[in-house]
Amino acid sequence: MQNSSKSIEQVFREAYEIGLKAAPTGKVADYIPELAKADPNAFGICMLDAKGRSIALGSVETRFSIQSVGKVIILAAALEKLGFDETFSHVMMEPSGDSFNSILKLDTRDDRPFNPMINAGAIQTISLLSDKMSFGELLEFSRTLCGDPNISLDEKVYASEYQTGDRNRAIAYLLKSKGVMTADPERSVDLYFKMCSLAVNARSLAYLGLIIATGGVDPMTGRRLITEEHAETIRVIMFTCGMYDYSGKYSVRVGVPTKSGVGGGLCCAAKGPMGIGLYGPSLDNFGNSRGGVKAMEHISRELKLHMFDV
Amino acid sequence: MQNSSKSIEQVFREAYEIGLKAAPTGKVADYIPELAKADPNAFGICMLDAKGRSIALGSVETRFSIQSVGKVIILAAALEKLGFDETFSHVMMEPSGDSFNSILKLDTRDDRPFNPMINAGAIQTISLLSDKMSFGELLEFSRTLCGDPNISLDEKVYASEYQTGDRNRAIAYLLKSKGVMTADPERSVDLYFKMCSLAVNARSLAYLGLIIATGGVDPMTGRRLITEEHAETIRVIMFTCGMYDYSGKYSVRVGVPTKSGVGGGLCCAAKGPMGIGLYGPSLDNFGNSRGGVKAMEHISRELKLHMFDV
Amino acid sequence: MQNSSKSIEQVFREAYEIGLKAAPTGKVADYIPELAKADPNAFGICMLDAKGRSIALGSVETRFSIQSVGKVIILAAALEKLGFDETFSHVMMEPSGDSFNSILKLDTRDDRPFNPMINAGAIQTISLLSDKMSFGELLEFSRTLCGDPNISLDEKVYASEYQTGDRNRAIAYLLKSKGVMTADPERSVDLYFKMCSLAVNARSLAYLGLIIATGGVDPMTGRRLITEEHAETIRVIMFTCGMYDYSGKYSVRVGVPTKSGVGGGLCCAAKGPMGIGLYGPSLDNFGNSRGGVKAMEHISRELKLHMFDV
Amino acid sequence: MQNSSKSIEQVFREAYEIGLKAAPTGKVADYIPELAKADPNAFGICMLDAKGRSIALGSVETRFSIQSVGKVIILAAALEKLGFDETFSHVMMEPSGDSFNSILKLDTRDDRPFNPMINAGAIQTISLLSDKMSFGELLEFSRTLCGDPNISLDEKVYASEYQTGDRNRAIAYLLKSKGVMTADPERSVDLYFKMCSLAVNARSLAYLGLIIATGGVDPMTGRRLITEEHAETIRVIMFTCGMYDYSGKYSVRVGVPTKSGVGGGLCCAAKGPMGIGLYGPSLDNFGNSRGGVKAMEHISRELKLHMFDV
Repeated sequence: MQNSSKSIEQVFREAYEIGLKAAPTGKVADYIPELAKADPNAFGICMLDAKGRSIALGSVETRFSIQSVGKVIILAAALEKLGFDETFSHVMMEPSGDSFNSILKLDTRDDRPFNPMINAGAIQTISLLSDKMSFGELLEFSRTLCGDPNISLDEKVYASEYQTGDRNRAIAYLLKSKGVMTADPERSVDLYFKMCSLAVNARSLAYLGLIIATGGVDPMTGRRLITEEHAETIRVIMFTCGMYDYSGKYSVRVGVPTKSGVGGGLCCAAKGPMGIGLYGPSLDNFGNSRGGVKAMEHISRELKLHMFDV
Repeated sequence: MQNSSKSIEQVFREAYEIGLKAAPTGKVADYIPELAKADPNAFGICMLDAKGRSIALGSVETRFSIQSVGKVIILAAALEKLGFDETFSHVMMEPSGDSFNSILKLDTRDDRPFNPMINAGAIQTISLLSDKMSFGELLEFSRTLCGDPNISLDEKVYASEYQTGDRNRAIAYLLKSKGVMTADPERSVDLYFKMCSLAVNARSLAYLGLIIATGGVDPMTGRRLITEEHAETIRVIMFTCGMYDYSGKYSVRVGVPTKSGVGGGLCCAAKGPMGIGLYGPSLDNFGNSRGGVKAMEHISRELKLHMFDV
Repeated sequence: MQNSSKSIEQVFREAYEIGLKAAPTGKVADYIPELAKADPNAFGICMLDAKGRSIALGSVETRFSIQSVGKVIILAAALEKLGFDETFSHVMMEPSGDSFNSILKLDTRDDRPFNPMINAGAIQTISLLSDKMSFGELLEFSRTLCGDPNISLDEKVYASEYQTGDRNRAIAYLLKSKGVMTADPERSVDLYFKMCSLAVNARSLAYLGLIIATGGVDPMTGRRLITEEHAETIRVIMFTCGMYDYSGKYSVRVGVPTKSGVGGGLCCAAKGPMGIGLYGPSLDNFGNSRGGVKAMEHISRELKLHMFDV
Repeated sequence: MQNSSKSIEQVFREAYEIGLKAAPTGKVADYIPELAKADPNAFGICMLDAKGRSIALGSVETRFSIQSVGKVIILAAALEKLGFDETFSHVMMEPSGDSFNSILKLDTRDDRPFNPMINAGAIQTISLLSDKMSFGELLEFSRTLCGDPNISLDEKVYASEYQTGDRNRAIAYLLKSKGVMTADPERSVDLYFKMCSLAVNARSLAYLGLIIATGGVDPMTGRRLITEEHAETIRVIMFTCGMYDYSGKYSVRVGVPTKSGVGGGLCCAAKGPMGIGLYGPSLDNFGNSRGGVKAMEHISRELKLHMFDV
């Protein structure tokens, strides 16, 4: 699989240096006060593979809020609990919001949110679960998928999310008013805020990435956590929608199913299978970890991890 | 690579039967009169692989207009003529038009068209070529990429396109007015109409798909026609943007880089590498060949061609 | 002022017949169950002028919910309580061309709602009052402006509004998230729902129209309730924005400052000065009382009430 | 009619001083080179009334391009040539709240442009005339309505309009593609460019305003040029849509039917009847003559010209 004579360890060390150097050129998220407290120079990479190998460089144990990477867990929970058909009758899986010949999109023929990786889609998805799973159960599911029993709710981040979450409330009430959401908007948004506020680290995200990459089986326990079909669906949706407005460019340049969060996390489900978790709270203009993206460009190129490499 | 004990031939025969059966349930495009004349029951599949194997079933020689599949050729021409950086400084490669938290997109921060697979993007892309390549040269390039010296301009389709192309003209003038397009809008749109009106067949599209799948080398002559990097970029963009508003669902369910056209054609650049061309002018609601999509679902599942299969 | 030798009484009688006849051709609002119970054939007109003359024809005493006519009272309250400059630093006075419940325009360069006659604008306006006036005080103000001490909250309509008001909640949270609204969204929307649920009759609306038409003075008591400048502002905004998506056509064809509500009410502040209240719950496609609009066309033409008549 | 003991002459002199002083604080239009050449300090007012009185102060004879004020003439021509019903079956009369060159609203449920005072509406309106009137006839009609036989086409402005008019071409082709426009887009846009490029002065616009204010009769010749109903319609549409995105605020604060153009002209059809033409090429952020608006605020207040004054 490797491109060159470099060892995997060497490639990751180089990537770590690249990411570390890139970090200070970005900007820590400040839309909620808790995020603004992160150290912009922090950077860490963790790699786990199916054979039990691991690499950990830099701030791998630092806890940060999962933010949008939690959307992957929400989607996984919905797929496992409700199945593919039921889930995708309430949210689409389209990266593109525009009709092929649209000049400007004013309204859509389909009121369902475009995909579960945007806020509207994640809020809609979690609303489907809101009367089937408590937050406690979602937290437990998150711990299992991340192989990390220490994940907990960061109460300060949650309080911030709750206080500043009016746009998400607007989205929920709009979905409710259109009849797309049938659950209670406040409860759905509250669950969503909590799932954004989970305190994870780069290692947790590597583990999550590895499970998705393997096709849904926990490599430590051998237990199946996600069906193979659902894991594949998640990989595809991470690939097409995982990096905000940079998703297309990232899929061309890096080509690894990845989900980012404004907390600075990146969760990659790479070929191998290999899970890669990155942490770098300094963000680029798209809201993705600047160091994380730079590091992944290097790793993908050197280890030939691009999904479309022949 | 295969899923089962079935031979490739058998899988394609089954797919052909599925596509043939599905065809009459769709609707032939009628926005231009010439397209409406197609036989809704026509269906054909052609497979070519790098080892020289080929399968041809049904209406494989029937000529039809390439329509949006021509966008793949336009993109390839721009990449080869101008390079990656220059091309993508004038058109984006994003499948998603919406900010991650958008409720409704009203205007974009970036005036460039979202990607080269939508009309605005293809018109913008061809405008970049309009003072560097004549239509004659673009036609020659198309013949080479499709391994089909008989491709010619369908004058009736072109006349129809020209007469009914006012929305495309509006798009071109809008791009011009924003300073995104610097070439002449009329000339650009005219070239675009011509590239939509090339008369191809399922075999031509299979050949085109094979070249893209191989990484840019013509398997018959061994000549490199597209750089490997460009071929990969084209595969990714076909994957994320190739099937109109069904692109996301197709990428999940079929997972093969594919571009469709309302003329009924499908061009697939599959693993193997394998090129698959399909023809079925009866379309689904998204504008994709109904039989073609059904056939590809079968083929991808049976031959495990999904790009994200582990 | 009159056009012809007909008496005012005769013109109103003719208008009443026209409105009564037109009524059954429309459709009673049914987006909340309580509204759907109205008698589609009901129709009534009440005219009051500054000299104490009055005309009352048909269902003049029937109570119905004020709905959007309440926006006029909300605007008057804000102008009196906060003044012109403060009010219009938080909401614009531009006709919008959008549907009454549009969210679209809230994502434009100026985040303020376009005007106080659309839902977003009325919710924003009442939010400015939410910590300065209780509902009890707003109710009392409404009774005074309508010369009708019997106006009360229709609890069933309010309950319906509250239950089905998710789009309005979405609007409020969106305004809050943009920093346009600083008050509590839930409290603001609740006040708004209550102000939509006041039980008025055609006579109340005629009185309200008369006060606005006179320039703000209660003709019965001689007491000034609204400053002359504010009354003029209200008349202009009723003229340009009062009839939903039919505002422009109504201003050309009828030309009388008028506000309609989906409860079937019409409040007109006509030259003279004259206040005209109409009730006809059968609505046209724009949400305006069908009989009411037809009757006003006749009255305006016969009595030359068009504001732009020379 | 007057507010005070001041003479009309004195009010206009004061208004002239106010306008002159305000002028340099704005910005001359520069989207076409010819407009940028205007003297930002120039300012002029001309008043004509039905009794033959006239006031002329400052740059009253300076020629400038009519720009959007020409939309009033286009509308008048359509109403006279095609009648009210035919005209307004192809363009609406709803104020839009959109920028003058917006394309947004052309993708709504009603494909007709919102009103004849935005570019889309004016282009659509002139397209209705394009096979019924030559530019020569439109020019002659303009000269008559403006009482100014010296109006001619400013060839330089026209050339500029033609060269930079791609957004207007986009609008025309979009209308054509939707079937709203049936005439030739290029010819329609060309006529529109020409009608924007007429060289008028403040006196011409005062004359035009007076004819509209009187109800359509030329006060010099006694000849009826526009029916009374059409003149009223034009006054209403000027009132609700005449001042770009400032229309609502202007209608509240000034309250005189007025149309502005980015050439610096203002045409007012005031009560009296009185026609007022203003010229001040220095514009505010909305594209209206800064001095002109300030002067009209003063004149309307002092002479009580607000249409909604009681």
